[in-house]
Amino acid sequence: MEKIKIAISGYGNLGKSVEAGILQNNDMELFGVFTRRDPSTIKTLTGAKAYLADEAPSFADKIDVMILCGGSATDLPKQGPFFAAHFNTVDAFDTHAKIPEYFEEMDKTAKKAGKFSVIAGGWDPGMFSIMRLYNEAILPEGGTYTFWGPGVSQGHSDAIRRIEGVADAKQYTIPIEEAVNAVRGGVNPSLSARQKHKRVCYVVAREDADKERIEREIKTMPNYFADYDTTVHFVTREELDRDHSGLPHGGIVITTGKTGINKEHGHTIEYKIALDSNPDFTANVLLAFARAAYRLNREGATGAKTVADIPPSYLSPKSPEEIRRLYI
Amino acid sequence: MEKIKIAISGYGNLGKSVEAGILQNNDMELFGVFTRRDPSTIKTLTGAKAYLADEAPSFADKIDVMILCGGSATDLPKQGPFFAAHFNTVDAFDTHAKIPEYFEEMDKTAKKAGKFSVIAGGWDPGMFSIMRLYNEAILPEGGTYTFWGPGVSQGHSDAIRRIEGVADAKQYTIPIEEAVNAVRGGVNPSLSARQKHKRVCYVVAREDADKERIEREIKTMPNYFADYDTTVHFVTREELDRDHSGLPHGGIVITTGKTGINKEHGHTIEYKIALDSNPDFTANVLLAFARAAYRLNREGATGAKTVADIPPSYLSPKSPEEIRRLYI
Repeated sequence: MEKIKIAISGYGNLGKSVEAGILQNNDMELFGVFTRRDPSTIKTLTGAKAYLADEAPSFADKIDVMILCGGSATDLPKQGPFFAAHFNTVDAFDTHAKIPEYFEEMDKTAKKAGKFSVIAGGWDPGMFSIMRLYNEAILPEGGTYTFWGPGVSQGHSDAIRRIEGVADAKQYTIPIEEAVNAVRGGVNPSLSARQKHKRVCYVVAREDADKERIEREIKTMPNYFADYDTTVHFVTREELDRDHSGLPHGGIVITTGKTGINKEHGHTIEYKIALDSNPDFTANVLLAFARAAYRLNREGATGAKTVADIPPSYLSPKSPEEIRRLYI
Repeated sequence: MEKIKIAISGYGNLGKSVEAGILQNNDMELFGVFTRRDPSTIKTLTGAKAYLADEAPSFADKIDVMILCGGSATDLPKQGPFFAAHFNTVDAFDTHAKIPEYFEEMDKTAKKAGKFSVIAGGWDPGMFSIMRLYNEAILPEGGTYTFWGPGVSQGHSDAIRRIEGVADAKQYTIPIEEAVNAVRGGVNPSLSARQKHKRVCYVVAREDADKERIEREIKTMPNYFADYDTTVHFVTREELDRDHSGLPHGGIVITTGKTGINKEHGHTIEYKIALDSNPDFTANVLLAFARAAYRLNREGATGAKTVADIPPSYLSPKSPEEIRRLYI
């Protein structure tokens, strides 16, 4: 069997997780890693070769799918269209508000190139998006809620690190159990940001830094913390490295709805994930969609799609007969 | 907007639930109900008209999708191909072992007719099938477990009713919490049927019936009960009607898996449903797939597919733009 040749653009946490994930998928192999850094400085986990990102187009005929592992804020808006002009791509673009704009750009570029791009993969957006869609299609009269965590939010951790006097920090987003249970109860509660999640921060302060000021600046930071109950723990560098070096995450999508001629029946659907490693899980989702992108493009599909447009069976390495026998 | 014209074949619990479910979907309308009984004896919930099943083909141009609500044991193997020769169809065929055979028959018939059939909808097979497939595509190194209940198993209730001296019965299938938690722990435990589920029966005995014999016959019944810890409660007709008239059900699909270059990260995915009414939920799933069948056939797709082959976005009444904005 010919293997699907995957390449990775961007060799941070997510890129490394994609590299490891490929080893779990027997129908895939890694071509190499593309980077904006000096490739000679990149030492990959598996010994895969690193190349300059700018040179990627010259390898277009050697790569089936390029997995875009850059960040959504500044990397993907440029890298997405750059790669989509030459490769089937999969990414985890997650700036919700800019998805329509990014979609248009990727769709236009991929169509022109005769390639296929899956955007906004991963788990949210990604699997959680798919679940929200399925759930609301099944229970049209109801309500859908998403809770995130318990887990490390990199955006919030970064925001703390930008505060004067902070040497390092990790921020955990934690769903509030009472809110989750209220949703499960089927009453479609109105929940403020503060009622849904709390935030717990572990902060390493620089020597002589004013911890009271740091704590105040965290708790009052608009958008990130001001609307939540936030707890700040100051820890040593050793404690942070020992107890908070991982990137666990998770969350729940819950939909409740009523059915029956008199709306007499209640139903609850819950999709819950608990992840030791957010980048590993995200990478594995992207790889499953890479398989789909490869197949769909071989069948003639071009342009950009979101995860909601991909038939589930295209994600599986199993044949239609095996799928019917094993999963249905 | 032109509405999707739905018809129902078979007016039992599931057929009634489909009729009620159509009222929740603004883009659908009910054409009528097809039955093998005398149509004049059918009084529908919404006043929809009943027709003889044999006459259905003459209404082919007035109906977009026929929802097949017959049983899998004897109805669908005949009714499926009969209707697929004239209509787009959706069904909840659930005899797992016979799905390949049923699929071939439906695929051949629908292709010849230029129609589209979604087979094995509902929740298991159905949404649970989709979840098993997604989960294992994302976590290739892991294990997937399905637990059913707590809920009423109609097949097991029927089996009890066939015992001499039983006037009526309801059987609840209940997952064993220790087993569910062992699976969540990620150890991929080996679990026997007895370790995964227990069975609780509420039985109305006929006057003068030998209750000890009935209980013994239930508990030793091969396939249905012998491999499980079964509890039998004898109740009065009044108690059964008062406390056990509903058809609640539910279940969980759990996948755990390892990732990381040294398999150092564990992950858990759970999909859990809790349903006041098994037929209502099943009906709503079938209606969402009816929407997909209608659209796919209009786009030129013919033949049979399982739920795993349908892009999630085809289930939603929302436009691609709305889906990207609301769900992704």
